[in-house]
Amino acid sequence: MIKVGIIGATGYAGAELVRILTGHKDTRIVWYGSRSYIEQKYADIYRNMFQIVDTKCLDDNMEELAGKADVIFTATPQGFCASVINEDILSKTKIVDLSADFRIKDVEVYEKWYGIEHKSPQFIKEAVYGLCEVNREQIRTARLVANPGCYTTCSILTAYPLAKEGIIDMNTLIVDAKSGTSGAGRGAKVPNLFCEVNENIKAYGVASHRHTPEIEEQLGYASGEKTVINFTPHLVPMNRGILATEYASLKKDVTAEDVKAVYDKYYKDELFIRILDEGVCPETRWVEGSNYVDIGFKLDKRTNRIIMMGAIDNLVKGAAGQAVQNMNLMFGLPEEEGLRLVPVFP
Amino acid sequence: MIKVGIIGATGYAGAELVRILTGHKDTRIVWYGSRSYIEQKYADIYRNMFQIVDTKCLDDNMEELAGKADVIFTATPQGFCASVINEDILSKTKIVDLSADFRIKDVEVYEKWYGIEHKSPQFIKEAVYGLCEVNREQIRTARLVANPGCYTTCSILTAYPLAKEGIIDMNTLIVDAKSGTSGAGRGAKVPNLFCEVNENIKAYGVASHRHTPEIEEQLGYASGEKTVINFTPHLVPMNRGILATEYASLKKDVTAEDVKAVYDKYYKDELFIRILDEGVCPETRWVEGSNYVDIGFKLDKRTNRIIMMGAIDNLVKGAAGQAVQNMNLMFGLPEEEGLRLVPVFP
Amino acid sequence: MIKVGIIGATGYAGAELVRILTGHKDTRIVWYGSRSYIEQKYADIYRNMFQIVDTKCLDDNMEELAGKADVIFTATPQGFCASVINEDILSKTKIVDLSADFRIKDVEVYEKWYGIEHKSPQFIKEAVYGLCEVNREQIRTARLVANPGCYTTCSILTAYPLAKEGIIDMNTLIVDAKSGTSGAGRGAKVPNLFCEVNENIKAYGVASHRHTPEIEEQLGYASGEKTVINFTPHLVPMNRGILATEYASLKKDVTAEDVKAVYDKYYKDELFIRILDEGVCPETRWVEGSNYVDIGFKLDKRTNRIIMMGAIDNLVKGAAGQAVQNMNLMFGLPEEEGLRLVPVFP
Amino acid sequence: MIKVGIIGATGYAGAELVRILTGHKDTRIVWYGSRSYIEQKYADIYRNMFQIVDTKCLDDNMEELAGKADVIFTATPQGFCASVINEDILSKTKIVDLSADFRIKDVEVYEKWYGIEHKSPQFIKEAVYGLCEVNREQIRTARLVANPGCYTTCSILTAYPLAKEGIIDMNTLIVDAKSGTSGAGRGAKVPNLFCEVNENIKAYGVASHRHTPEIEEQLGYASGEKTVINFTPHLVPMNRGILATEYASLKKDVTAEDVKAVYDKYYKDELFIRILDEGVCPETRWVEGSNYVDIGFKLDKRTNRIIMMGAIDNLVKGAAGQAVQNMNLMFGLPEEEGLRLVPVFP
Repeated sequence: MIKVGIIGATGYAGAELVRILTGHKDTRIVWYGSRSYIEQKYADIYRNMFQIVDTKCLDDNMEELAGKADVIFTATPQGFCASVINEDILSKTKIVDLSADFRIKDVEVYEKWYGIEHKSPQFIKEAVYGLCEVNREQIRTARLVANPGCYTTCSILTAYPLAKEGIIDMNTLIVDAKSGTSGAGRGAKVPNLFCEVNENIKAYGVASHRHTPEIEEQLGYASGEKTVINFTPHLVPMNRGILATEYASLKKDVTAEDVKAVYDKYYKDELFIRILDEGVCPETRWVEGSNYVDIGFKLDKRTNRIIMMGAIDNLVKGAAGQAVQNMNLMFGLPEEEGLRLVPVFP
Repeated sequence: MIKVGIIGATGYAGAELVRILTGHKDTRIVWYGSRSYIEQKYADIYRNMFQIVDTKCLDDNMEELAGKADVIFTATPQGFCASVINEDILSKTKIVDLSADFRIKDVEVYEKWYGIEHKSPQFIKEAVYGLCEVNREQIRTARLVANPGCYTTCSILTAYPLAKEGIIDMNTLIVDAKSGTSGAGRGAKVPNLFCEVNENIKAYGVASHRHTPEIEEQLGYASGEKTVINFTPHLVPMNRGILATEYASLKKDVTAEDVKAVYDKYYKDELFIRILDEGVCPETRWVEGSNYVDIGFKLDKRTNRIIMMGAIDNLVKGAAGQAVQNMNLMFGLPEEEGLRLVPVFP
Repeated sequence: MIKVGIIGATGYAGAELVRILTGHKDTRIVWYGSRSYIEQKYADIYRNMFQIVDTKCLDDNMEELAGKADVIFTATPQGFCASVINEDILSKTKIVDLSADFRIKDVEVYEKWYGIEHKSPQFIKEAVYGLCEVNREQIRTARLVANPGCYTTCSILTAYPLAKEGIIDMNTLIVDAKSGTSGAGRGAKVPNLFCEVNENIKAYGVASHRHTPEIEEQLGYASGEKTVINFTPHLVPMNRGILATEYASLKKDVTAEDVKAVYDKYYKDELFIRILDEGVCPETRWVEGSNYVDIGFKLDKRTNRIIMMGAIDNLVKGAAGQAVQNMNLMFGLPEEEGLRLVPVFP
Repeated sequence: MIKVGIIGATGYAGAELVRILTGHKDTRIVWYGSRSYIEQKYADIYRNMFQIVDTKCLDDNMEELAGKADVIFTATPQGFCASVINEDILSKTKIVDLSADFRIKDVEVYEKWYGIEHKSPQFIKEAVYGLCEVNREQIRTARLVANPGCYTTCSILTAYPLAKEGIIDMNTLIVDAKSGTSGAGRGAKVPNLFCEVNENIKAYGVASHRHTPEIEEQLGYASGEKTVINFTPHLVPMNRGILATEYASLKKDVTAEDVKAVYDKYYKDELFIRILDEGVCPETRWVEGSNYVDIGFKLDKRTNRIIMMGAIDNLVKGAAGQAVQNMNLMFGLPEEEGLRLVPVFP
């Protein structure tokens, strides 16, 4: 039994970790960390867990937790993990960090986009970027995994094979993404109130959203070129789901069959990536509650562009599901253990 | 491996059966019946099942299906099951009927409220009303189970212990129920369009809804008295969930502890019924996607009434989940097999 | 031109006052009071008002405001109006208080249900309860109007004629009410976040909601009997709208025509009350954005009860619209000035 | 008093015409045409109009209607207006066609994208494209106005000044648009059911949506260049609103002030177009129920692109509101008559 500690267990991503791990046969949660709800029963905060989880929330003492857990998930705001991590902790336990602290290899880029000083740059190099389908082998042996962001997971996986194979002109890539509101977190802020989000759609963080450099770095590795993109997130009045609509000019004269073959080359054996039949557009409802990434595309001969579309559940493949997938890899478990979640519809 | 046939597999309840049975380790679905989509791939209708279910829809030939399946779920409109069932079929297979055809023992009551002739009244007596927590033993040996309605499951279980113990005056019982829109089915009707349901709440079927006599019959058995109630359903702009708010005058001078003890007497060992702590109101979000019934109550000394509240997921405990629970009982499997579904939130 | 001051102009009710008064030909808003946003442009908070309202928010200095405005709307939390009102202010200006401070005549009842001390009980007697269709004449000459609550407006008007005419047994009255989320206000609280409200329905304040004594007092006046009711509010995932479903036993043997005649007796000439045709249930969508109250009913011979249903827009007839209707009466304007708002659907 | 006939009065756009014209002081609706509801009371279909509209639905006899109405709005499916229009009708009445029949000047382009034969190509040249802010003068004298599509109104107006002034490279223009569900119409179709749309976002009509050539034609006129774009519509779980997020490479080295000046040059005096302050993103909630177009933009020096964003209410500026604005122009009325609708929030 793998002993799991969660820091930030009462955020939406943390709660999704609890939901998924409750159905994981090889793990036991030993620490429900939540600075805001110390000493309160976890099931009083998330009443779906009534009679399922019978324990109280603890603080975020990583030192103590490192001695008790085989793996720690930090589902915490930017800067937390970097501020507490040290060699002693890493010598005792593995860490899957759901924040951005160790995703970006260039510390200056991190500090510029996030506006905070990185407190543990010495671990950045060691950290493995936990996009399982791309970095599977390095993850297996990692002590510290940087779990990718929700928008980034969707945006990267949707374009990755075409970037890798040089099919698309990376300088033309535009990612127009749409997210459910759980991505905004559980903080009590006026813009996230029901009446402010419902019956509305808006863009935000235009040309400045923090997931931009993460997408650029990873697609840069894939394409072998410096990649600078437009990334525009939008807030959608729904709980879960991200849809990324991506546009790029074609560098080669390809048919739909060619493109399909490229996707299949990379994803055919991936359990959690489903390449849709031609002409089928992914929809967030079809992946809700599951770890799937659904990908579709359309060639437009009129503009010589390809429109790629990817859909995920932001809390599963975009956060907790991928974190568990990473944990499975790190501990030599079947990668899909605990993640055979059938999408819930309607 | 139990071979399962589903008639009506592309309705919302049928699709939920597919979702649940996909995670059930002792069953295999051998027949996805759907009159509307014959010969189409099931996963083309419910794309969440892409790469999970790889088969086509079939017709609703019960005779043929009876020879192939150990159990048939009929998730069909009123009248269908009664019109096709016969001794030959029942001699070959078990049936869990999700329609109302065999729920009401008095055929005249059925015909009056449903406005159709009952085509197989000879099987009404044999049919067991599949409210598992109440009729568990009879269900184990049944050939034909009448799976309760969604509103009725919630309404009955919420009041049952107090009716049984004579705590409440049955003549004063009022059930004000609120349902998500999946309860209205997947038929293409204007009143169920997004723009018609969204940003709205309404009552419907006031003093005439078909679930009324079913609640009355079962609570009549529980209380030992003829029970005539007001039942008012409302349509809520959400996908899933039923909340029943029930009012009744108290026949005895009871404390909250007394009432809690009565609920515990009947439900303490029930895995799927959760009696909430005092002062906690059930909410549909805490049971979404699961087979739980959450029940809370409040005594009002000012009016000498008790307000009972129950919440279920209408597609799970209110339809497919309870149907599988019935199947498990009928086949001697652990009652919760396939049903340890953790509620999904948010 | 009537000069209007609004205290609490950036809450949802205050903002609705701004919207309505923008279309009122006899008023001019001279004071947008908002303690939280002093010195900020009003249109930066409510961007729908961009290029419509071009002024900044001010504080809540009632003394100063009284010298500048002909009428003040206090759309503020409980206790504010009572804590600042005095004879000097009332000698200079009229007040329509949208809080509960002056709704309840018995100060002990107020203090018990609201849990705060009433700071100006000397004005309670003078204050007129601003339910326009009931207290029209007194409102015309009032200096201080207590604008009714949203739930109460809907609950009272739906039952009022039957209470007044002795048709229903007041001891059996049960009000099961459902409200959109704008009724919860614009405060940044976790329970009102989008993901907490969406895809959910719950009861709250069961047997203890503060609107209860207000309904009881007014229906007590109507029926001439002490009235004690059950009132249960529910939170619905929609922005606007209240639906009250009310149950009562009949004291007389009446037909639907009789009941219709009673409603017509009181409401036939009321512009803002629409008695629906028999069998038609009110729905919140049909009154959204308007000052209408839609009322329907159903007799149930089986239980000898009547089910009455009323629907309003909680921000209009339940708050700002009724406040403007009161103002119109107080200033001798046509009662419907500024309120001929056609419901917006979808 | 201008006598107005509406064909298609029970669709969402038709109903919005009714709502708006109800508040228009110079018009009277003489014909509520609705093939599906002939002889039914209009207020029985749209109950928001109870006691406001007291008349029955009529058929779609344009010949007869032409003799009775000064102007006819055809809020009908593609092909209807073209199939019934003739010189006799146009000699008696003016027509504002809300369908696509007369929007596209090249009949071959129309027939290719819409897949139907154009039955009255002889009137295409005469028809004026009713984008009021662009073609105001021609509209004043038109007999036949082709009211622009919802997506197109938003997409064109958002980019128009920059296209006209040669700021953006038209070959790089990408329009990623998001629409509320009322844009899908009131037809009873499974994909538009509440449970299918709610909690979901999807793209549709990728690289093939019929509004594409309309946008291309108009922006081609503006830029003076043949314009071929990518246009991708998405369906959002909300009733109303369109947000267009548009991307284009810059042809000139411009500052935000330069761009703002360009927008101001064209729109400063336009009542219904609001250019937002720098850094402010338009949101559909701020224009809901109104005829406004809110436009914002962001320069991205990293990619040398501009991101333009526009928001409208698809039923108002995207359909009925603009149709009334066109009517006002055609009859020499103040352009904003009946259209001073303050956006409704929340």
